[in-house]
Amino acid sequence: MRYALGVEYDGSEFHGWQRLTAHGETPPPGREPPPTLQATLEAALSSVAASPIETICAGRTDAGVHAECQVVHFDTDVQRDPRGWVLGTTSRLPPSMRIRWCVPVPGDFSARFSARARRYRYRLLNHQVRPALGRQLLAWERRPLDVDAMHRAAQQLLGERDFEAFRTVHCQAAHARRELQRLDVSRDGDIVTFTVQANAFLHHQVRNMVGSLLEVGAGLRPETWIADVLESRDRTQAGPTAPAQGLVFVGPRYPREWPLPEEVLFDA
Amino acid sequence: MRYALGVEYDGSEFHGWQRLTAHGETPPPGREPPPTLQATLEAALSSVAASPIETICAGRTDAGVHAECQVVHFDTDVQRDPRGWVLGTTSRLPPSMRIRWCVPVPGDFSARFSARARRYRYRLLNHQVRPALGRQLLAWERRPLDVDAMHRAAQQLLGERDFEAFRTVHCQAAHARRELQRLDVSRDGDIVTFTVQANAFLHHQVRNMVGSLLEVGAGLRPETWIADVLESRDRTQAGPTAPAQGLVFVGPRYPREWPLPEEVLFDA
Repeated sequence: MRYALGVEYDGSEFHGWQRLTAHGETPPPGREPPPTLQATLEAALSSVAASPIETICAGRTDAGVHAECQVVHFDTDVQRDPRGWVLGTTSRLPPSMRIRWCVPVPGDFSARFSARARRYRYRLLNHQVRPALGRQLLAWERRPLDVDAMHRAAQQLLGERDFEAFRTVHCQAAHARRELQRLDVSRDGDIVTFTVQANAFLHHQVRNMVGSLLEVGAGLRPETWIADVLESRDRTQAGPTAPAQGLVFVGPRYPREWPLPEEVLFDA
Repeated sequence: MRYALGVEYDGSEFHGWQRLTAHGETPPPGREPPPTLQATLEAALSSVAASPIETICAGRTDAGVHAECQVVHFDTDVQRDPRGWVLGTTSRLPPSMRIRWCVPVPGDFSARFSARARRYRYRLLNHQVRPALGRQLLAWERRPLDVDAMHRAAQQLLGERDFEAFRTVHCQAAHARRELQRLDVSRDGDIVTFTVQANAFLHHQVRNMVGSLLEVGAGLRPETWIADVLESRDRTQAGPTAPAQGLVFVGPRYPREWPLPEEVLFDA
């Protein structure tokens, strides 16, 4: 039996999604790394099932990155109704994680490979003083930002492109071609929001695109510079990686033929 | 010299606004109460001024209640430009508090007595599973809520009324007549929001109104019951006090003749 889960989390206290320490980093002796989201979720699911459960996710998030609706799938012989999985698993998770929903899916559904798009949101407070209320989900930029210039510059990245310049050297993807479907930058008072959608993302791609757009927004670079960076295929040309705290994985999108909740399907 | 400050805070870790322990509660020996917002702010201001500073606020918030823009005023002989007060004070505050702005005001301005209205927002997740992301600012109600019924019921409370039934026995106000100017209930997905404005509020009034409306929303009481509770002037008739976590003091509103930022003035 295969199930899909919608998982929400505040990534602040976690060492990212992946069960094993990423990139071969080894913690200093005697200092345990903070738990990973995957290990925490699998321990809770395995406890409900009373047998080991492994999960595959739609998008591995980095340390400190949040998710509104991560999607995972897992296989089990244990019979439980979806409500039992949702409530039983959530009751075994820390307050920073919860299961939004659970549905049975066909055996050929994959949370990772069936997803046709991923959406992220990056939010920051643009003010001379750091945020206090809601600071867990907000980055901070004290330089006044020209949001219209950032939005115009962002449109140069749309389409199927080689995003080599915007991925970290740790990125393990075979190539850097991705289709960026949307990159909107907007302002509501002091809050600046980046809404980003692509078929898939490279490691640090969203945070590197945001970090580069901030250079344009702060007036350090012209709008056309973003296209030059893309063209260069050289990571050292792009801006700094924006902090993880402002980044939320809104969720993947699947074709409507899969029996999934509306929030992870493409619009009809 | 008198200054007004806009103060933002996450109230989770504080024992409410007031400097002294409220209602004569005494902590058990050896157990210090958590700090209050007022004491924390006054310590930071006094450190910047290098002399003791006392503050008067627009609305004292309870333990666990947040503020988007609390307003305080204080008097001092120390000469500093507003930017110095903002940055110097914020740098001495914990991450859960910040100063949004500082402006010099005439000596007859009072953060408390010049305010003509106060606005609060109450937000909760209406879902079978507790919130995870953004949980610091969300209450939780697992019973499915009829938001339209709550909104209609809420309109019975508008106007100048005696809100005796909706204040705690600890409330020290001389009488319970207040003018409720707005009480809107709306839904966006699983999030239910109450937007409340009055000339002033009684102790626990917002949380008691919300708690009573939840009884209507859950179908336990008819819409007209709210008017009966109001009429009764009897606290024991109302619903339970909704938890503090979902409540944000959006801020006070002042007449436009005061030289204050737009966010705390009445609409032009």
